Amino acid sequence: MHLGKLSLGLLALTSWSVFAGFKPLPDRAPIPADNPQTPEKIELGKMLYHDPRLSMDGTVSCNSCHNVMSHGGDGRPVGVGIRGQRGGRGSPTVWNAAFHTVQFWDGRAASLEEQAVGPLVNSVEMGMTSHDVVIERIRQIPGYVEAFKKVFPKDTIPTIKNVGKAIASYERTLITPNSPFDRYLRGQKKALTAQQIRGMKLVQEIGCTSCHDGVNLAGDDLKMGEGNYKPFPQIPGSKYDKMYDITSDLGRYEVTKKDDDKNHWRVPTWRNIAMTAPYFHNGTVKTLDEAVRVMAKTQLDMDLKEDQVSDIVAFLNALTGEFPKQTMPMLPNTPNMTVTPDL
Amino acid sequence: MHLGKLSLGLLALTSWSVFAGFKPLPDRAPIPADNPQTPEKIELGKMLYHDPRLSMDGTVSCNSCHNVMSHGGDGRPVGVGIRGQRGGRGSPTVWNAAFHTVQFWDGRAASLEEQAVGPLVNSVEMGMTSHDVVIERIRQIPGYVEAFKKVFPKDTIPTIKNVGKAIASYERTLITPNSPFDRYLRGQKKALTAQQIRGMKLVQEIGCTSCHDGVNLAGDDLKMGEGNYKPFPQIPGSKYDKMYDITSDLGRYEVTKKDDDKNHWRVPTWRNIAMTAPYFHNGTVKTLDEAVRVMAKTQLDMDLKEDQVSDIVAFLNALTGEFPKQTMPMLPNTPNMTVTPDL
Repeated sequence: MHLGKLSLGLLALTSWSVFAGFKPLPDRAPIPADNPQTPEKIELGKMLYHDPRLSMDGTVSCNSCHNVMSHGGDGRPVGVGIRGQRGGRGSPTVWNAAFHTVQFWDGRAASLEEQAVGPLVNSVEMGMTSHDVVIERIRQIPGYVEAFKKVFPKDTIPTIKNVGKAIASYERTLITPNSPFDRYLRGQKKALTAQQIRGMKLVQEIGCTSCHDGVNLAGDDLKMGEGNYKPFPQIPGSKYDKMYDITSDLGRYEVTKKDDDKNHWRVPTWRNIAMTAPYFHNGTVKTLDEAVRVMAKTQLDMDLKEDQVSDIVAFLNALTGEFPKQTMPMLPNTPNMTVTPDL
Repeated sequence: MHLGKLSLGLLALTSWSVFAGFKPLPDRAPIPADNPQTPEKIELGKMLYHDPRLSMDGTVSCNSCHNVMSHGGDGRPVGVGIRGQRGGRGSPTVWNAAFHTVQFWDGRAASLEEQAVGPLVNSVEMGMTSHDVVIERIRQIPGYVEAFKKVFPKDTIPTIKNVGKAIASYERTLITPNSPFDRYLRGQKKALTAQQIRGMKLVQEIGCTSCHDGVNLAGDDLKMGEGNYKPFPQIPGSKYDKMYDITSDLGRYEVTKKDDDKNHWRVPTWRNIAMTAPYFHNGTVKTLDEAVRVMAKTQLDMDLKEDQVSDIVAFLNALTGEFPKQTMPMLPNTPNMTVTPDL
């Protein structure tokens, strides 16, 4: 009996090799054929991304909720848009979003290009009344008109499609390589601590990696535009459903209206997860250890022991990558006047 | 008669040399003896300046209203703080603020150090309930605790005084040298156009420079901490008083409660003025040409001709300096948790 246990332990230890579903983060994101990267396009996208004039009253930029200076989110349960309005869901990190197959929590955008222009016209986010109003605003800013002409020479004026393309191009540069996990996968066996390695094995053994695999640990080795949706909770009825209000937002169902999609969500990335609290689509879970407990219970029907939680949290901390230094964009101005209305 | 006019014109043209009150912007701002600059302190200040967690709900940073990426203001009539609250006055540009003798529109802070910690605890701005709450928040962020120890080794924990010192140190790097005007003053006679030179002469002849002189064109060749306050309107009763609601905010009087200070204001800088619309303490004037008309009437009792307005506006556009490139700070995080409450 005792010997049996030991043998099993040795077997697990010796037979384990790096899980085939784990892959290091590539240096470059997939680039769509119809939106090639150029330095000028990336710079234009960076300006647009950081420009609060793309919101109705000039107070909210893409970066307000997806703050590239603080690991890509806002550290809040839900985003806050113009006039202090609270959004319905948490702000996913923009870092490595380029590796997602679909965008938004519910996958309602098939590309970064499509995603980028959504919040502009969401009344509780940036609050522009239409994409035409966005373009009208941009056309008042001479530096943008000139930059769009250079970057998109086939179009005589800025278009909303090109706004999305430029922002997406910038976002494809927001990649965090060389996490301890990536270095481990590339052969640096000391990049992970013993506890992190225990955590890494545990997430496979108990089944977390049946969803969280692939380069983004979001089950995303699929074609771009094809989402990887999973139910949350997988096993309804635990105390957490009510405690963290897990089920009231129907997720993917709100897009498709198919019953099978109720409470389904795009699998979120584990990359930099330690830096993007609070957790889940509604941000109701404040700490990573609690998020691990909730997921084990709601998805795998497991009550983890505290040392198991600690090991998994240690592993997830090994997924924090290197954030490349960026220069701040200088936003083109409108000499002698402002384009922001008095709202 | 005709000859007389011509002589006077020639006299004005030939006798004019560069006005003694005009001075090029120095490369460095004055540094107070008790807050020497160090690269580490400047970097810490930059992080704090760009960190929305210094506001109660994590949505507003110093940079939200004083946006260094867009010429230092927010392009809005008045700033917007947490929960969409509108402030009472426009956001002055942070660029070259280091050359002001006093800070805020009403000069109620004698230094950048003092100014920097004010908006943190203003209920309609960053909304922290006290400086203790600010420090408590900062102490939850390990990267800040470590950085404060390195930068201020005499203090064992972060203090609000040191928050002010770090932010002020960063702000003292926000200088825009080499405007066409500065290059002209340094001897590059072609740096200004003929129209800009006409405008430059005109602002002296009609008396604008009796207030707008010195390195910051804000009458600021005074000791730091001693404000240069002037009445606005100097000559009450013009149509503009009501049109732009000039007099309802009593300015300096709100600080001192002295009748003599009613409707007195710190003289604002002309530097980068073309880039910081809308204008005046309440941001009610949307364009620079109208601001010039208003000032001529309310301060000098003059109705300028349109070509005079154009010449002055052309000159003011020559005061746009070079904005140095900056790297974005990476804000220290709190692994596995967030410090932002759910407000």
